[in-house]
Amino acid sequence: MGLNSDVRDVTSCHQRRDVVCFCSHGHSFGRSFIHFLLHSAVISFSSPRLVFLEMNAQAYARVTEQGENVRELKARKADKAELDSAVQKLLHLKLEFQQLTGQPYQAGKPPAEQDSETNDVDPDDSVDVVDPWTVQTSSAKGVDYDKLIVRFGSTKITPELIARVERVTGQQAHPFLRRGIFFSHRDLEQILDAHEAGRPFYLYTGRGPSSEAMHLGHLVPFIFTKWLQDIFCVPLVIQLTDDEKFLWKDLSVEETQHLALENAKDIIACGFNPESTFIFSDFEYMGQCREFYRNVVRIQKLVTFNQVKGIFGFGDSDCIGKIAFPAVQAAPSFSSSFPHTFQQREDVPCLIPCAIDQDPYFRMTRDVAPRLGCPKPALLHATFFPALQGARSKMSASDANSAIFLTDSPKQIKNKINKYAFSGGRDTLEEHRRLGGCCEVDVSYMYLTFFLEDDEQLAKIHKDYSSGEMLTGELKKKLVEILQPLVREHQERRRAVTDEVLSTFMTPRILRVSL
Amino acid sequence: MGLNSDVRDVTSCHQRRDVVCFCSHGHSFGRSFIHFLLHSAVISFSSPRLVFLEMNAQAYARVTEQGENVRELKARKADKAELDSAVQKLLHLKLEFQQLTGQPYQAGKPPAEQDSETNDVDPDDSVDVVDPWTVQTSSAKGVDYDKLIVRFGSTKITPELIARVERVTGQQAHPFLRRGIFFSHRDLEQILDAHEAGRPFYLYTGRGPSSEAMHLGHLVPFIFTKWLQDIFCVPLVIQLTDDEKFLWKDLSVEETQHLALENAKDIIACGFNPESTFIFSDFEYMGQCREFYRNVVRIQKLVTFNQVKGIFGFGDSDCIGKIAFPAVQAAPSFSSSFPHTFQQREDVPCLIPCAIDQDPYFRMTRDVAPRLGCPKPALLHATFFPALQGARSKMSASDANSAIFLTDSPKQIKNKINKYAFSGGRDTLEEHRRLGGCCEVDVSYMYLTFFLEDDEQLAKIHKDYSSGEMLTGELKKKLVEILQPLVREHQERRRAVTDEVLSTFMTPRILRVSL
Repeated sequence: MGLNSDVRDVTSCHQRRDVVCFCSHGHSFGRSFIHFLLHSAVISFSSPRLVFLEMNAQAYARVTEQGENVRELKARKADKAELDSAVQKLLHLKLEFQQLTGQPYQAGKPPAEQDSETNDVDPDDSVDVVDPWTVQTSSAKGVDYDKLIVRFGSTKITPELIARVERVTGQQAHPFLRRGIFFSHRDLEQILDAHEAGRPFYLYTGRGPSSEAMHLGHLVPFIFTKWLQDIFCVPLVIQLTDDEKFLWKDLSVEETQHLALENAKDIIACGFNPESTFIFSDFEYMGQCREFYRNVVRIQKLVTFNQVKGIFGFGDSDCIGKIAFPAVQAAPSFSSSFPHTFQQREDVPCLIPCAIDQDPYFRMTRDVAPRLGCPKPALLHATFFPALQGARSKMSASDANSAIFLTDSPKQIKNKINKYAFSGGRDTLEEHRRLGGCCEVDVSYMYLTFFLEDDEQLAKIHKDYSSGEMLTGELKKKLVEILQPLVREHQERRRAVTDEVLSTFMTPRILRVSL
Repeated sequence: MGLNSDVRDVTSCHQRRDVVCFCSHGHSFGRSFIHFLLHSAVISFSSPRLVFLEMNAQAYARVTEQGENVRELKARKADKAELDSAVQKLLHLKLEFQQLTGQPYQAGKPPAEQDSETNDVDPDDSVDVVDPWTVQTSSAKGVDYDKLIVRFGSTKITPELIARVERVTGQQAHPFLRRGIFFSHRDLEQILDAHEAGRPFYLYTGRGPSSEAMHLGHLVPFIFTKWLQDIFCVPLVIQLTDDEKFLWKDLSVEETQHLALENAKDIIACGFNPESTFIFSDFEYMGQCREFYRNVVRIQKLVTFNQVKGIFGFGDSDCIGKIAFPAVQAAPSFSSSFPHTFQQREDVPCLIPCAIDQDPYFRMTRDVAPRLGCPKPALLHATFFPALQGARSKMSASDANSAIFLTDSPKQIKNKINKYAFSGGRDTLEEHRRLGGCCEVDVSYMYLTFFLEDDEQLAKIHKDYSSGEMLTGELKKKLVEILQPLVREHQERRRAVTDEVLSTFMTPRILRVSL
């Protein structure tokens, strides 16, 4: 699954806009792309500079051509899936162009021959690509979530809706909700209606166990889900998509299953109620519950290759496991997949808190739900958690310095933040005092919005840092003071998760909550 | 699955070669195809005759164009999957042309404007389409199996190989083997090597439970498999692909599961050893055995959409369930899918007796086996069992007169054979006595080759009927005498299959045979 909130595959290779220098940054996308171009038959220049200018021109031509395709599809009112697929491709190409040239794509304006140091990127022209396997943005502030809401067709969470959550539950809204970290939803009102009317619902979230090393960003949906479980007192199912990670990564079945168990311990350490929480791995549960496979196949019967091509961008050379997988992530949205807990009931609605990149799975699920006679799952969408290097770069399990991992020592936490957390501060003390820091791109500040619960303190930090009264070192110190105990306490709770506790959470059983 | 041996989707709509009359035959393929053409925008003639001439020309053009595509693909040494897909399409188009015009397609010779009563079809020009969902032929003698062996790349079963089976087992070969009903194989020698060396193997066959009404043709692979089980003393697994039938047919999960259980009773009635036979439904077993799902996903990781497109002809508008399904039929070819019986061993080879139309599944399986570190399954291919109306037409559960069903009464059997069994006899008694009957197209004689065990008697019937000494009525009487007790005894054995017996066969357990 990967209902995780890390920013993946975000490349920052266009920090300097001199395209020849681009190469030396050596980020993975750039390297493999250049490798491809240099080894493809069409390019045979001897001067690197000419190669890059030609690359720019080619990238420009690709965007232009794809733009025409999209217009043509719209004009002839093409099939939605086909159009979606073409638009998705266009966005990828625009991002590629911008990463290559450091300039946003502008129709009718081919890339200039000269380097364009002066030509600043307008943040409004940023290009975001968000799907379950790619989260890429060209903006230092991160993905433009308002644009995403329009593109995905979801609904922004308004102050009125937050107030209603507080009214219905009698609890103050979680900081993630107050601060717009969970910023978008689908049908949350209907879940609140059901709850008010005393009708049951359940929570569903998950994780794709691709690595043992979970980081702070992975905690975000789980922390919020625990809060939802506490205030609503409803059953919760957590899917570990070991089958997905087996299909997408170079891992064996046994490796992904091991990772699923290790990740489950970190999830349990978030404090979920063992009475009302069921954590399952797909490889395990498929062999334990015949209703799960039945629902998977029921969904697979209703979704065509054309549709998953449009939604997920699959192609003809993708393996049939990937093509079929979306149904496996969709199935837990239907209560009949959990006969132990819901006694074959097909009508218990579900609310899914997840990072917005997982929305495509559930758009598909909501599409098939009525045809299965089941309620559509409701959704709560989170923003992405930024890497230490900034909202544009990538948190990666293979780069220990890109994130705070849940296994980091207090010293490692302190060093990483001091050394790597991208700063919105000014180059000199004098300048900082005079102009103030920029919270919008400062990673330490962003992390505080996630983990500093006190709204007033946070507001004061924002004010002091922006005005130049607070220095970067002081801001970082504050963050270290918050994160060190948070991670230490997590580690203590994780150590308390015995195999017996793990087995309790992962056994299919009745979840003890009033339905 | 449908390792069944019935001839499906075979249309006989070109009995008369006057294309205008073609319509009145009203077989399903013809009707829907004409419906398509008449309602497609390109055709707007008012005269039916002109419409059909234009249809012929268009069908001819389609074959020619596709032929050029195939040549072009071969010339540029295209990807095998792509080439296979194109060749498959070419065969379908050739068959369509022949069904429409009553003439085989000949390159460079467009269909004549005049009706061609005199232009007889050379049987060597017959067109066969054989895949798991379509078995179509234009020849009254049925599919040309020698051509199929060449096309599928399997190996003909020679008299020497049959002699070796007899030597290794110390038993006379089954009539199905002696008479070429099982006519082709893959790696049977290696199974015999293993057996001679005292190494274990197991048998795997199956059925797609799309209807309660099983007919004689469905018994063929099971009768032969029982014989193999008896002479080799090896475990046998029988897959009921209720998930496949759910995906392909307008049936609910519950309906296909019910059909699976009903069909299992007929299969058990074939006399399989309850100690060494495991019958399972996919919907049930997937929820009982985690190794099964794991193997399915392992296979799905190794097969691309391009490959299943080439092998099975799937398209973009097929549902993702169909696209993923081939892995479900492949998985039982690997012994690790049955941990109860083979204790996690991955190296026990398997022999699959099935109708030749199922070969594509196992070509795919053999392709992935080495990459999974598992032995390739060996195969024994059966010919198709003809419909009462002849080798060109279709046995169908919805047409009670197309087949002898296992539920038919002695009287029904007699009436059906007398009324519907296509005869190779002559139009008048005088002519028959003078010229003799034609066994090659006579369905009663074909049925005797399946069910009359005595070789000498069969040879005498062939001689007497061909010489005109034996009349059609006498031939049919002989067949009735054989089939009435055969079906009655099957019904008695089926009645003895209690729910308890059914449950024994369908419980995952150790199969008691020496390994």
